[in-house]
Amino acid sequence: MLQRPPAEPGMREDEVDTPALILDLDAFEVNLDAMAARLAPTGAKLRAHAKTHKSPVIAGLQRRRGAVGQCVQKVGEAEILAWGGVDDILVSNEVVSPLKLRRLAALNALARVQVCCDAPEAVPLLEEAAAAAGHRLGVLVEIDVGAGRCGVAPGPEAVALAERIAASPHLRFGGLQAYHGGAQHRRRPEERRAAIGGAAEAVRRTLEQLRQRGLDCPIVGGAGTGTFELELETGLWTEIQAGSYVFMDADYGRNEEAPGFRQSLFVLSQVMSAPRGTGRAVLDAGHKALPTDSGLPLVWGRPGLRYVGATDEHGALAVEDAAVPALGEKMRLVPGHCDPTVDRYDWYVGVRGGRVECLWPVAARGAMA
Amino acid sequence: MLQRPPAEPGMREDEVDTPALILDLDAFEVNLDAMAARLAPTGAKLRAHAKTHKSPVIAGLQRRRGAVGQCVQKVGEAEILAWGGVDDILVSNEVVSPLKLRRLAALNALARVQVCCDAPEAVPLLEEAAAAAGHRLGVLVEIDVGAGRCGVAPGPEAVALAERIAASPHLRFGGLQAYHGGAQHRRRPEERRAAIGGAAEAVRRTLEQLRQRGLDCPIVGGAGTGTFELELETGLWTEIQAGSYVFMDADYGRNEEAPGFRQSLFVLSQVMSAPRGTGRAVLDAGHKALPTDSGLPLVWGRPGLRYVGATDEHGALAVEDAAVPALGEKMRLVPGHCDPTVDRYDWYVGVRGGRVECLWPVAARGAMA
Repeated sequence: MLQRPPAEPGMREDEVDTPALILDLDAFEVNLDAMAARLAPTGAKLRAHAKTHKSPVIAGLQRRRGAVGQCVQKVGEAEILAWGGVDDILVSNEVVSPLKLRRLAALNALARVQVCCDAPEAVPLLEEAAAAAGHRLGVLVEIDVGAGRCGVAPGPEAVALAERIAASPHLRFGGLQAYHGGAQHRRRPEERRAAIGGAAEAVRRTLEQLRQRGLDCPIVGGAGTGTFELELETGLWTEIQAGSYVFMDADYGRNEEAPGFRQSLFVLSQVMSAPRGTGRAVLDAGHKALPTDSGLPLVWGRPGLRYVGATDEHGALAVEDAAVPALGEKMRLVPGHCDPTVDRYDWYVGVRGGRVECLWPVAARGAMA
Repeated sequence: MLQRPPAEPGMREDEVDTPALILDLDAFEVNLDAMAARLAPTGAKLRAHAKTHKSPVIAGLQRRRGAVGQCVQKVGEAEILAWGGVDDILVSNEVVSPLKLRRLAALNALARVQVCCDAPEAVPLLEEAAAAAGHRLGVLVEIDVGAGRCGVAPGPEAVALAERIAASPHLRFGGLQAYHGGAQHRRRPEERRAAIGGAAEAVRRTLEQLRQRGLDCPIVGGAGTGTFELELETGLWTEIQAGSYVFMDADYGRNEEAPGFRQSLFVLSQVMSAPRGTGRAVLDAGHKALPTDSGLPLVWGRPGLRYVGATDEHGALAVEDAAVPALGEKMRLVPGHCDPTVDRYDWYVGVRGGRVECLWPVAARGAMA
C-alpha cells in the first residue's frame, strides 16, 4: 500500500508525523541552481540521475534549469518518469530480460529512451525488442573505466560492440557510458583525481578508435556528484549524470574537499523513549527508515547528540555534553546515503521557513525491476 | 506507487521478473507447523511478530495454527493488520505521538489493541487518546531485560509505572513486555543462555513485586526466533513474539546451534552483466533489493558462487571453482536479514514445485509511522 502523507501543507515542521522524509526547499533550490550555473559555460549537459530522487517533479525542476534528460537504473524507474512527463531517458545500466526490454521499448511513444549494453549476446535481445516495437532504440556501450562492475573493456572490445549495435537494423549506437562509481566516495581528492584520470584515458582511447572506424559517438555519459568537476576538466564527457547533488548525505560529507552542495534531505525523527538515568534516548527511526549501507545518520543542528546505533525500528542516541532530549522531541537526521533512504519513503515533505510547503510523491519508490 | 506483481500464478520460477521476493511455500509451511507444534504442549502462546512479514495473509495462517494475535512495532502496521482482519494486536513498542495514539485508539472497533509504555510522562498521552476514543486501552510496561534500548528498569520502577497505568480511568495494565533484542543474534548458545537467564531473573523479580502490590499481570511477552526455547524453559513468558522463524535469513544461519527452521525466503535475481575474462558476474539486486545491515546475502544452491559486494542496484558475484553464470541466468539469494528485505517489496511470490502458486501483498510495506 501507498503510505499516507505524514503532513499537510501549512503545518509546522514539528507537527509532521515521524519518521518523515524532509526536503529543505531553500537548500534544494540552491543546489539545483548551483549545478545549472556550473554547467552552463561548459560544453557538458546535465542528465541528472533519477535513481536518487525517483521523482518526475524533481526531474521537471532540473529540466527547467537546463537538464537534457534523466538517467535511471531500472526499467520501472523509466516507466514512472515517462508516465510523469520526462521525455528523454537513459537507462544507464544493462537490461537483458526480454520482458523488461518490451516494457522499455513500449515507452517509445512517450519519450526518447536509450539503454546500455556491455555484451554481444545482449544485442539480439535489444534488436528483437526494438523491432517488435517498430522503432530504433539508442544503445550506449558501457565501458569499465575502473569501477570493476559492469562494462566491456575500453578500446577494441568497446568498438566491436558499438559496430555490432550500429549494424543492427533497429538499434542505433548512442555513445559511451563511462561512469566510475567507485571514485565518487574516495576520500582524498588526489585519489579521485587519479581515478578519473584513468577513466579519461580509457574514454579518449575508445573515442579515437571509434573515430578511426567511422563511428560517430553522440554521447559520452558518466560522472557523479563526487567527481564531476574532474570529468568536466577533461572536456571529454558530454553528459554529467550526477544525482546526489540535489540532496547530499553524510557519506559525501566525509569526502575531503566534499562537493559544494548543501544538505537538503533529512529524516525527521521523534524521541520515543528516554530511559531515566541512562543518559541515552531512542529515536523512532532505525535502519528501515535510514539504510546504513554507507554508515549511520548524523543528528542535525543538535550538538552533543550522536546517533550511535540502528536496529530495525529504533535509533540509539548517545547524549554527550547535552541535555537528554525530552520524550516526544523531534529532530532532523542527515541520512548516511541519500539514494536508498529516499527509496524507503512514499512522500517528500517540502519545508521552507519551518512550514510544510508541499508534498511530492516518491513516485518510483520501490521500482527495482 | 505500488509496484506491479513480478509474476502470475502458474509461471515457472525462472519466468518471474527480478528482483522478486520468493516465498518457498513448502519450507514456509513446515516452519509455521513446527512453531505451532513446539508451543502446543507448553503454557505459552504465539503472538507472532508482523514487523517481519507485514502481511495479514500470513497472520491468518499463523492464527489458524493457534497464534493468539500479532505484534507490530508501528501504528501503521497495526492499521494494516486490523484492516486485514487481525483482531488482537500488540504494539510491542512505545508510542508517544498524540496523532499516532488517536490512530491506534480508533482501531478499537476492529481489534483488541494494546501498546507498550516505558515512561510516566507518556501515561497522560495514552489516557487522553483512550478517553477520546471512549474505551479502555491495554498498556504493557516494557522493562529493559538487558538489550539497553527501551524499557524501564525491572523491579520498583516497573511496578510504579504499572500502578500509574492501572490507576488511569481509561487504561488497563496489560502486563510486561520483556524482549531481549540483543540476545537473538549472539553467536554462541551459552551467550544467549546467559542473556535470557538475566532477563528471566528481571521478569521473576518484577512479577513478584507486582504480586505484592496486588497487580495482576495478564501477559509476559517477549522472546524471538533466536532465543524462544530459552524463554520457554523458564515458564515465565506467556506470549512468544517470534517473527523471523517463518522465513529465516543468513544472519540467523550464522548463530551456532541456529534455530531449527528452514530457509523459505529468497530474492530471485538475474545476471545482468558478466564481463568477459574477469571471472565475475553482476546481479540485478544490490542493497536496495537486499539491505545489508546484517551482512551480505548468500547464493542459494549454487556452489562456487559468492555474493561479495552490494551497491545500490548491483550485486557483485565472485566465481570460485564454478563456471561463470550466463547472462540472463536467475538465481535465489538468501537475504542477510529477513525483516528489512521484506519491507523493500510490494509482493510475495509464493512458489511450490518450481511454479508460482500465489501472490500476496506485503501489505504493510513502508508502514514506518
